[in-house]
Amino acid sequence: MYGLIGKMLAVPGRRVELLEILMDGNDSMPGCLSYIVAIDPGNDDAIWVTEVWDNKGSHAGSLELPQVQAMIAKARPLIAGFGERFETEPLGGIGLDPPQLREQP
Amino acid sequence: MYGLIGKMLAVPGRRVELLEILMDGNDSMPGCLSYIVAIDPGNDDAIWVTEVWDNKGSHAGSLELPQVQAMIAKARPLIAGFGERFETEPLGGIGLDPPQLREQP
Repeated sequence: MYGLIGKMLAVPGRRVELLEILMDGNDSMPGCLSYIVAIDPGNDDAIWVTEVWDNKGSHAGSLELPQVQAMIAKARPLIAGFGERFETEPLGGIGLDPPQLREQP
Repeated sequence: MYGLIGKMLAVPGRRVELLEILMDGNDSMPGCLSYIVAIDPGNDDAIWVTEVWDNKGSHAGSLELPQVQAMIAKARPLIAGFGERFETEPLGGIGLDPPQLREQP
């Protein structure tokens, strides 16, 4: 599995709008096992996103999906920058949604 | 919701044992919506644990559960220290297991 832990900084005063976009845009991403959007209780502009994918390729592929590209286009003007970012290799636990069904080739 | 993102450092050479303990000990924790154990691909001793709870009280309560106390007792000698730790307020996303059923009072 492939994981990402990342902090995003909203343009001041725009965090709520950015959160809505982030939470709307993450349906139906093949290979996405977990995608959790959180706020930083100590910073009014900061958002944490933690992600688990079946593999790194699925994450890269998600960035090409039309709904993700639309989300990125809407989100970009509301993002002031990024904070910490960590790549991980998740091994297991609670809350890993089973991989979505895909047609066999 | 209440979230934690934390890095744990195993005693050198003992990460695999520590991972097994962490992944075994996290069943049946009331209010636990996500608990994902990952390795840091850049540090042979480091483990990331990302957690989501229905509220902060459930997390605190979990530390009193017999199976969690047993897990902590087994894990402690294998832990050399801790790295980054962030508290979050998760709002939503993919992979939040529904709260476990509990008896009504």
